[in-house]
Amino acid sequence: MGRWEPNARGRLERAALELYSERGFEQTTVAEIAKRAGLTERTFFRHFADKREVLFWGAGSLQDLLVGTVASAPDSAAPIDAVAAAIEAAGALLQERRDYARQRQAVIAANVELQERELIKLASLASAIAGTLRQRGVRDLAASLTAEAGIAVFRIAFERWINETSQRDFPQLIRESLDELKAVTAGK
Amino acid sequence: MGRWEPNARGRLERAALELYSERGFEQTTVAEIAKRAGLTERTFFRHFADKREVLFWGAGSLQDLLVGTVASAPDSAAPIDAVAAAIEAAGALLQERRDYARQRQAVIAANVELQERELIKLASLASAIAGTLRQRGVRDLAASLTAEAGIAVFRIAFERWINETSQRDFPQLIRESLDELKAVTAGK
Repeated sequence: MGRWEPNARGRLERAALELYSERGFEQTTVAEIAKRAGLTERTFFRHFADKREVLFWGAGSLQDLLVGTVASAPDSAAPIDAVAAAIEAAGALLQERRDYARQRQAVIAANVELQERELIKLASLASAIAGTLRQRGVRDLAASLTAEAGIAVFRIAFERWINETSQRDFPQLIRESLDELKAVTAGK
Repeated sequence: MGRWEPNARGRLERAALELYSERGFEQTTVAEIAKRAGLTERTFFRHFADKREVLFWGAGSLQDLLVGTVASAPDSAAPIDAVAAAIEAAGALLQERRDYARQRQAVIAANVELQERELIKLASLASAIAGTLRQRGVRDLAASLTAEAGIAVFRIAFERWINETSQRDFPQLIRESLDELKAVTAGK
């Protein structure tokens, strides 16, 4: 058993992201991350399966939030409104971690494997949302398309939020992007 | 210089897909593919960079078709209609290769790395379409969302087409999926 380390996970995450930003993801070792965080490799592996997991462990709670929000929408809500509520809730969660999100995005953008990993995580989120819509009685095709539309809106709003200089908040950008999607699909 | 081999590329592609289906992608070697096709490894590498490329070389011509169709839509066409024409054209192209497409999809579904690769290719197609829309004067956000919506429709219609027993054709399934997307984003 190791010593109890206050906020070891957060320290490791911060150290990893610093090193990935400075040297690149591939050039960074777990030993270096642990050292930067003032912890041992053993402690690292108690928190993360590998150095890639540091960037992706948050997807689980994001999925829980998305699925939970869709599931708890009123029965009368149209599928797109249930999904809108879910992606706005996810946006509000991320809003508090903008610097982290921006730094993480830059690391991912620099590495094709990480980009591929990110895309598959987003595809999983869409599948999970579609599954929840089906449980609410939404037909198969409508469920898939609503979920995909929601994730596309989320991703595009995310890019704007990360790159924005105007500091509009993420949930607001999500609402704007969804309105735009509604306009373009209506042929405007 | 090797001998001239009639339709070497097609024979290699067919042999590769057979072996990937029988043994799995990872368990298949380039030597085995060449042998099955009655060709040499040297000939294989004249046509494909590696065994993964056999599954993805078609993305280039698909992108050309999508981009070309969007670019040549009438000036008066709404962005979503330009994209609809493009994905229908792509659907018509693939329609002629349904057995191939189905077999390829099964190989990809069995391997996470190939799935990731497929997702990044689809993301590239969306980027290329969005870029073409921007050149047509469509605003940035509308361009991105229309392109993403188009690729989502394409992908979901593709899944239905591959799994369908009713033999509806791919362009028709694309039109139905797009209509459904229009309905769900309108809150129906």
